[in-house]
Amino acid sequence: MNVSIETIDLLEGIATTRAIRRFTPEPVSDDHLARILFAASRAPSGSNRQPFRFVVLRDGPRAREAKAILGRAFRSAWAMKRASDGYESGSGAKTDSPKARMARTMQRFADEFESVPVVVIACHVRYDRPNTYEGASVYPACQNLLLAARAIGLGGVLSTWHLLVENELRAAVGIPDDVFVAATIALGHPEGRHGPVRRRPLGELVYEDGWGEPAPWAVDPPGTRHTRAGPPRAG
Amino acid sequence: MNVSIETIDLLEGIATTRAIRRFTPEPVSDDHLARILFAASRAPSGSNRQPFRFVVLRDGPRAREAKAILGRAFRSAWAMKRASDGYESGSGAKTDSPKARMARTMQRFADEFESVPVVVIACHVRYDRPNTYEGASVYPACQNLLLAARAIGLGGVLSTWHLLVENELRAAVGIPDDVFVAATIALGHPEGRHGPVRRRPLGELVYEDGWGEPAPWAVDPPGTRHTRAGPPRAG
Repeated sequence: MNVSIETIDLLEGIATTRAIRRFTPEPVSDDHLARILFAASRAPSGSNRQPFRFVVLRDGPRAREAKAILGRAFRSAWAMKRASDGYESGSGAKTDSPKARMARTMQRFADEFESVPVVVIACHVRYDRPNTYEGASVYPACQNLLLAARAIGLGGVLSTWHLLVENELRAAVGIPDDVFVAATIALGHPEGRHGPVRRRPLGELVYEDGWGEPAPWAVDPPGTRHTRAGPPRAG
Repeated sequence: MNVSIETIDLLEGIATTRAIRRFTPEPVSDDHLARILFAASRAPSGSNRQPFRFVVLRDGPRAREAKAILGRAFRSAWAMKRASDGYESGSGAKTDSPKARMARTMQRFADEFESVPVVVIACHVRYDRPNTYEGASVYPACQNLLLAARAIGLGGVLSTWHLLVENELRAAVGIPDDVFVAATIALGHPEGRHGPVRRRPLGELVYEDGWGEPAPWAVDPPGTRHTRAGPPRAG
């Protein structure tokens, strides 16, 4: 593989991998996909069973059909979320507020889902009954995938909105019944940029020696900017 | 934070983060924990709700009790696995085989679980009924945590064996009923080394345009060494 890439430090990469939902029309090359999927497959899984499978959708016939099915789901899910999470109210009414910008990005992402360069369906071949722990052997691979995309200048976002159309999606892509469809990941060349992500203050997320017990050392690096949890709702 | 660390490239780090189960007795410093947990908290989650919480167990009173409870679970789970997965048979009978070495590592890990320097309980505060997708908002954070440990010279391993003693663990640590206990992560300074991990050939894990359809570009980098899926069983 002869792609020259800038290197990025592991910790820096982790701290600056944003959810990317706006893509340029540039296709994602085979070589980029190979690097990203290789990274995904390095993830751990229970007993190293490697139950994860990745179906890559670009512009083949089944890809187009699957993207159209997913596009309907994303538009429907976003319409519900836009209303229920108050994206129109408060600061959402001001076109330059972060909330209004986020709403525009989400609207475009949903409206143009069919033109997302790559959609990866992250799956898990079940060897046990469905349970809340099975994600431990597929979502770490999804995170590796997103970090690797960031490392080579691409970006993406994970979603579980396929749930709204899961049966149609399974039929279109030929996914067997014993396979857990864990997520879809949209991928492409970012129109925007990666950069520091915002979270709640670390001390609110980390405890020591017991639930709810403060961990005095759990302090964000200087200059870290915070956000509240969840969708905007008010404000 | 004034720790000087070597930097490691993001893609290189992803490809060389091994499951570490043998630790030196060296404690894990507050500063190391802060870096590792900060990285964990950078992970994405649905609507950026950040439902993940991390309970760090070192040598406080509840930590000791929780580690003893988990130690019993790990010894019991490993004893079952050792028998059912054929660790004693075939090449497992030869003391220098990879299988026999793996069995020794697992035995020591279970036997000495109480002296693992740090155990992080990865949790998820539920805002919905339990489902197979909720891991999407906690296991990516666990993977960030393990990658960050590797970045600063530590290592660890994720397990769901706490399931065998979940109620006792909840009581000891004070974890509320509406919280999903997703995993425990053992952490410390590795006695061994990180290095390239082994997986199945990439082409067996990646499809394009349909389930089971080959992706010709899904080729491992030159020199990649493979392994079969899952526990050893035979051979």
